[in-house]
Amino acid sequence: MRKAYVLGVGATKYGKLSLQGRELAAQAALEAIHDAGIDARRIDGAFVANAFGMIEKQGHPGPLLMTSLGIPDKPATAIEAACASGGSAFREAYVNVAGGMSDVMLAVGFERITQVDTVTATGYFSYGSDYFCEGGNGASFPGLYAAIARAHMQRFGTTEEQLAQVAVKNHANAALNPKAHLPKRITLDDVMKSMYVAHPLKLYDACPFSDGASAAIVASEEVARELRKADVLVAGSGRAGSIASLPDRGDITSIPGAQLAGQQAFRQAGLAPKDIDVAEVHDCFTIAEVVATEDLGFFPRGEGAKAAEQGRTARDGDRPVNTSGGLKAKGHPVGATGLGQVVEATQQLRGQSGPRQIPDAEVALTHNVGATGGSCAVHILRRA
Amino acid sequence: MRKAYVLGVGATKYGKLSLQGRELAAQAALEAIHDAGIDARRIDGAFVANAFGMIEKQGHPGPLLMTSLGIPDKPATAIEAACASGGSAFREAYVNVAGGMSDVMLAVGFERITQVDTVTATGYFSYGSDYFCEGGNGASFPGLYAAIARAHMQRFGTTEEQLAQVAVKNHANAALNPKAHLPKRITLDDVMKSMYVAHPLKLYDACPFSDGASAAIVASEEVARELRKADVLVAGSGRAGSIASLPDRGDITSIPGAQLAGQQAFRQAGLAPKDIDVAEVHDCFTIAEVVATEDLGFFPRGEGAKAAEQGRTARDGDRPVNTSGGLKAKGHPVGATGLGQVVEATQQLRGQSGPRQIPDAEVALTHNVGATGGSCAVHILRRA
Repeated sequence: MRKAYVLGVGATKYGKLSLQGRELAAQAALEAIHDAGIDARRIDGAFVANAFGMIEKQGHPGPLLMTSLGIPDKPATAIEAACASGGSAFREAYVNVAGGMSDVMLAVGFERITQVDTVTATGYFSYGSDYFCEGGNGASFPGLYAAIARAHMQRFGTTEEQLAQVAVKNHANAALNPKAHLPKRITLDDVMKSMYVAHPLKLYDACPFSDGASAAIVASEEVARELRKADVLVAGSGRAGSIASLPDRGDITSIPGAQLAGQQAFRQAGLAPKDIDVAEVHDCFTIAEVVATEDLGFFPRGEGAKAAEQGRTARDGDRPVNTSGGLKAKGHPVGATGLGQVVEATQQLRGQSGPRQIPDAEVALTHNVGATGGSCAVHILRRA
Repeated sequence: MRKAYVLGVGATKYGKLSLQGRELAAQAALEAIHDAGIDARRIDGAFVANAFGMIEKQGHPGPLLMTSLGIPDKPATAIEAACASGGSAFREAYVNVAGGMSDVMLAVGFERITQVDTVTATGYFSYGSDYFCEGGNGASFPGLYAAIARAHMQRFGTTEEQLAQVAVKNHANAALNPKAHLPKRITLDDVMKSMYVAHPLKLYDACPFSDGASAAIVASEEVARELRKADVLVAGSGRAGSIASLPDRGDITSIPGAQLAGQQAFRQAGLAPKDIDVAEVHDCFTIAEVVATEDLGFFPRGEGAKAAEQGRTARDGDRPVNTSGGLKAKGHPVGATGLGQVVEATQQLRGQSGPRQIPDAEVALTHNVGATGGSCAVHILRRA
């Protein structure tokens, strides 16, 4: 396979937005096209990540996007892998370019969900679980991740205060991100005093429901060099899964698909966890970030929470995680999330992250998880 | 890119079925695995086409399928391109193998829709249109294809009787297909006396709502040769689109994305329309088959209906189309449809089509259309 580069990225602000999903998608795509410095006609095709199109009664978003971009003849395929839809769309854009089918591919993720109430939204999210076994029996995602948190606490002594530190850190990062949904600093006390949504997880342990869109353009080396944009290489792509239903697994303190996808990406990139300068991981709940940092090998099993408490994942720590604010505070517009991670990773490698910049970041990782790990996508980007 | 082969195919019966979608998907996949003669563990990943998962509250079918198959660690990404979801899933399985990312990929499409009433189902289908412009204003797919039919009649003199002949032929083919939803012969009179669903289209001009699943396994040349299954080559893959909303196009007597996808597939295969021995085309309505046979270059523009009337697309005609019975009579379980076309094409090339067999078929084509052409996938398979 040939080399592929991130040619351009774009994103809307995340939050409670009034635009239609198709408008959000177009806005992010146009920003990525502008960032890439190309004419839209150079795009060979697109993957569009979206999970809750049913809310807008739009189940076929690809042609809507391409029509908006003035390239209706170009194919666009919608991708769904629950909350890993965005990372999966990026993966297929990469495969199409690296495999030689296309020279320039667009990956766009978008979601519009805040126009329904929280209970309805939680219900829609549960369609991402094994609904017959989980969601349909009342196990919503707060409940499933609470089970993971309890198991982690019992096995490793992880505390609620340690989890709360993840939220405090990610809000501090989001406060420096003008596109974040919740750009406000919070204190440990704020988290600890927030109401339980599923014990031991509290409101501030959970990401918000967000609207928004993010996009990335992947191009062949030839195109990237022609445009003098061969600066962010897709060095590794991993994609794996786990048993769909959490209760059907044995140990639930890690996510096997995320471990495997991470290993695949590291192997392809020829890199190790210690080489990652900055990582965007899937922190739908604070416990998810802790598990992610262990699954990726940043910290030994059971030590992720302690590492967070010690500030090792802060911007000035030795292993900065979620400089964007993460799902927790930047927001979680489901289809957009994995591509928003690529936006942050790319901007960090280019030195465009302003007050959130990790100095001299050379290697970045994105980690996107669908449901409790049924779908996992890990990518490693490298400054070239 | 390297050569890729269809290693195995499988399908459930199409019709009103009582199994869950996940069970249908697993059944088709297991038949394809058995047909390929491989252990499931050799599968590197899957694409799963499904459009109406919301009906079963299952929005993340990939991991459910892989868990059923005993390979939960392997990634499975859901694909949506309205009624072209199946063809699009096959396309990405092909791209992953031909591009060198994977050696063996599974593509499965499934749908379960008959448990909702016809009005509700028509509503769900309309989510595949540009809902803001079309479905939401009452333009359901029968209405949109009726507009295409009227335009074709006005411009080319196509008659209702000519369209009816498409239905008569496809039912005659389905009567020979044990997996068809509507395996019964009908007469021209039956069609002409059926009620109008959207003038000039009558009930028997329309495909049914079907449940069902189909699957195909694509493998690299190395794997296919090792297993002595290098007999059906994927010779060409085309994927293109059209302006999402039908009223926003100019001439609506053809589908630009289908023309383009066909041209791409022919170019890659180094073949011309005259070389196709058997074709499965997207006949959601009889007019759609007529337009398809023109878009693919089988007949000149405006002569598709006459060709159908003359029997040229019958099994004993010079250009056999929809030997399976097509969407019209084999059935249209949306996500499964494009992969069901691959099943029929593969079996025709292998000489496994029993009483429907086209003698010495060497080249087969599949043509899968989403909505009124927003998404189009065309593939050419060749006996190797």
